[in-house]
Amino acid sequence: MTDTNRQWLLRDRPTGAFSEEHVELVTADVPTPGDGEAVVEVTHLSMDPTIRGWMQMDTYLPAIPIGDVVRSLGVGRVVTSRSDRYAEGDLVSGLTGWQEYTVADDGDRRLEVLPAGTDPLVAVSLFGPTGLAAYFGLLRVGAPEAGETVVVSGAAGATGSVAGMLARHRGCRVVGIAGGPEKCARVVDEFGFDECVDYKDDGFRHALRDAIGPDGVDVYFDNVGGPILDLVLARLAIGARVVICGAISQYDGAERRGPANYVNLIRSRARMEGFLVFDYVDEWPQAYRDLAGWAADGTIVNRLDVSEGIQSVPTAFAKLFSGGNDGKNVVAL
Amino acid sequence: MTDTNRQWLLRDRPTGAFSEEHVELVTADVPTPGDGEAVVEVTHLSMDPTIRGWMQMDTYLPAIPIGDVVRSLGVGRVVTSRSDRYAEGDLVSGLTGWQEYTVADDGDRRLEVLPAGTDPLVAVSLFGPTGLAAYFGLLRVGAPEAGETVVVSGAAGATGSVAGMLARHRGCRVVGIAGGPEKCARVVDEFGFDECVDYKDDGFRHALRDAIGPDGVDVYFDNVGGPILDLVLARLAIGARVVICGAISQYDGAERRGPANYVNLIRSRARMEGFLVFDYVDEWPQAYRDLAGWAADGTIVNRLDVSEGIQSVPTAFAKLFSGGNDGKNVVAL
Repeated sequence: MTDTNRQWLLRDRPTGAFSEEHVELVTADVPTPGDGEAVVEVTHLSMDPTIRGWMQMDTYLPAIPIGDVVRSLGVGRVVTSRSDRYAEGDLVSGLTGWQEYTVADDGDRRLEVLPAGTDPLVAVSLFGPTGLAAYFGLLRVGAPEAGETVVVSGAAGATGSVAGMLARHRGCRVVGIAGGPEKCARVVDEFGFDECVDYKDDGFRHALRDAIGPDGVDVYFDNVGGPILDLVLARLAIGARVVICGAISQYDGAERRGPANYVNLIRSRARMEGFLVFDYVDEWPQAYRDLAGWAADGTIVNRLDVSEGIQSVPTAFAKLFSGGNDGKNVVAL
Repeated sequence: MTDTNRQWLLRDRPTGAFSEEHVELVTADVPTPGDGEAVVEVTHLSMDPTIRGWMQMDTYLPAIPIGDVVRSLGVGRVVTSRSDRYAEGDLVSGLTGWQEYTVADDGDRRLEVLPAGTDPLVAVSLFGPTGLAAYFGLLRVGAPEAGETVVVSGAAGATGSVAGMLARHRGCRVVGIAGGPEKCARVVDEFGFDECVDYKDDGFRHALRDAIGPDGVDVYFDNVGGPILDLVLARLAIGARVVICGAISQYDGAERRGPANYVNLIRSRARMEGFLVFDYVDEWPQAYRDLAGWAADGTIVNRLDVSEGIQSVPTAFAKLFSGGNDGKNVVAL
């Protein structure tokens, strides 16, 4: 434990692409716990696209105030405690922010104590927004049945890969969409999807049509929005469920494009539905058990892309939007 | 009964605006019923936007073949019958086509015999696609509860007006959207909506925001698509249901625009869902009883815009897309 706490503060709200100029690294003192508080040394931060929204504007959470530490999920270890809730050495998970130390209490700054023996890398990836989004979005909102055709965009990414692996576990035929032959190979070979279509390839439209097949898409788990969403909306089966998990093509940049083929929801008697993992908070403990079990038995291959050190956070975060990361994007402090 | 049967045949598929040049009026003989068949004199045709789709392409039904009679809902009277199903004088409803006489049987050309005493004008309007879309779309897909805020676009139209009246009947606060002060006045004064906002007015965006209020929209019943759908998507309440009934702004013309704010489905944990009245065919008899009862007791004001004669069909149909009709668009033959 050092005596300084390096923190990334929000300096400007990004309207276009995020860059390091929107944040500022400062050095503060390590906090001292008050009555009922614990000090947590943050060990891992989860880099998630939703943070980009929190920086820019009020969404399902208020915008991060200018000058505040950037809000972020992370995990850490309790180093000193004056709270009955936390014991020294506990592994905790929650909104730690982009900083080396944080304070936990039993109120607004509550962090969850994880079961003893939890791997912090499993916790920061599968128990974070990406893993939980795959779990609740695919299993609850999409609710695929064995034998159905499931399409997942961002299939090489942290959420999409897990969603697809869960759909395979359910007995579905799973088609991934990813960018480039390397990612596509990984989606099939490492993550076990039945097929993967490369959206950067000239023949993408035809390849996607062929991969989907004549019966159409029963569940589309969408992480990207934009023209790919439009293409899949043209190929829905009757009663299809389109799970809007994210729209990474729409976050980083001013121009947004809606899916003109939403009109096909009529013909297909289909629904397009959004969700937030925060609405399932009572079921997180069950999700943790399931996800940890599936990571242990190989049902889920938990591929990580780990950057090192607090100073690497903005670069790691920016990679989310350039497609440059390779597995769940995590910073180890 | 004359001995000629005038029919409108599809000549070309419209890709832009529909005009009379896409169809052709021909004169055929009145059909003679074979064994198991009945001949029906068509008395009223229902002008519905969905016919525009049937003319252009395969949708939830195959495209109308070039040279065939234009497919259309209508009602009529049985004039001769060699079928146990139909008696002379029966009022029947179904896919009569744009013609003066049609043949009904017990197979693909089956028409529904309506209860004795049914008003044919109630049947051709409320029992047709517009009335049934309001009934099933609002009550089943939207499923509003008393006290919720329901927004209806195309509120002066045949479907929207009925949807709004059913929402009022459920105890909801109902905001209509319509074009021009006259239509808006009718929506409030005649159809009993709480408010109506004029989308042709310069202050539309602010007026809509104020009419919706700070708590947002619980159910949006959308007939129009386009920029209005986008505006409402920006004001959804948590758990909102967006019922995609139609997208009249998208049918007639080549360029289509998707709703960029569909991304708000995530923040609002909302769903956007399409439906077809054909999926509820087992429940049509109950819908007929409810709708006829509500028309009789004044819950539903069934405003009609009736054109006269088979030759007026294309002009009447084109009015659907120019906003020129004034009530449910019907042609009396």
